[in-house]
Amino acid sequence: MRILGIDPGLQTTGFGVIDADGPRMSYVASGTIRTSGGEGRAEIGDLPGRLKILFDGIREVTARYQPQCAAVEIVFVNVNPQSTLLLGQARGAALTALVSCDLAVSEYTALQMKKAIVGHGHAKKEQVQAMVQRLLSLPGLPGKDAADALGLAVMHAHARVSFEAMSRSTTLQRKQHAQFRGGRTY
Amino acid sequence: MRILGIDPGLQTTGFGVIDADGPRMSYVASGTIRTSGGEGRAEIGDLPGRLKILFDGIREVTARYQPQCAAVEIVFVNVNPQSTLLLGQARGAALTALVSCDLAVSEYTALQMKKAIVGHGHAKKEQVQAMVQRLLSLPGLPGKDAADALGLAVMHAHARVSFEAMSRSTTLQRKQHAQFRGGRTY
Repeated sequence: MRILGIDPGLQTTGFGVIDADGPRMSYVASGTIRTSGGEGRAEIGDLPGRLKILFDGIREVTARYQPQCAAVEIVFVNVNPQSTLLLGQARGAALTALVSCDLAVSEYTALQMKKAIVGHGHAKKEQVQAMVQRLLSLPGLPGKDAADALGLAVMHAHARVSFEAMSRSTTLQRKQHAQFRGGRTY
Repeated sequence: MRILGIDPGLQTTGFGVIDADGPRMSYVASGTIRTSGGEGRAEIGDLPGRLKILFDGIREVTARYQPQCAAVEIVFVNVNPQSTLLLGQARGAALTALVSCDLAVSEYTALQMKKAIVGHGHAKKEQVQAMVQRLLSLPGLPGKDAADALGLAVMHAHARVSFEAMSRSTTLQRKQHAQFRGGRTY
């Protein structure tokens, strides 16, 4: 199962791709998509242009690495409502890019991701970077946005394993329960 | 010049298409895109699914009516920050659909649109509907979301005409000024 993690933002969007085979995980790729401030990018005030760069960038990553599903960070409201609106629009463009590639999208909060990766929800960015480096045996520290995106992909792989284990044990209990009652397996 | 107006929302997005030839305008099409609560639509809580319906819907309108440019309402922060975030994501998906079709996007506030259509910025929805019906010689009152979208398209047509007239007069003044000074035309 190849998983794409996305940490969306209007200025910088982190992405991270991993392969997960049950509890085993391996690094495939990671990086950031920047929408303004450089060649081939948009002006800061050109929101439609910036969303297009974000949308095209995620579709390019998807075309290149062919993930089978995606995990996207749930963003939160900012103290500045105008920033909330801009971040919302960036996240809308990112989600749209993923669903336009027919990827199933799961959503996790930063708190859930940090709990899964570092062990507690108030971990600092540096702790996420260090744990992602260790979990995926990377030669160097990943960038902050890329680390968050890889963390989301790893968290999704964990969630899938737990979910499958839970389904198996539930099926087992149901079977035992059915046998005990002499009923049919359902 | 064929113009597509979009009034974005997560639940309902209005669209309106007009043809504008200088100050002359004619109605082409209008309607609403609904993301949840019906056959072929998404569950209320399925944000990625709803954004996909919105994105696909706008691309379908664009493919069918082949507009040359788009005018989109600038949304405002809501008293409820969570609603702001949801509206932002819907607007992000709408803008992304337009730019993915390579349409030039202009943005206007509801206040600007109401001023241009009704004459003052605090006009009610019903007044916008009635004025849009009159300006485009429609046989009946358009729906509220469709009327706002048509109003945006009409406003954009007005803005283009004013802008062109302004450019012409500025060029004229520059020429006269250059001649007066005996300098070269610039």
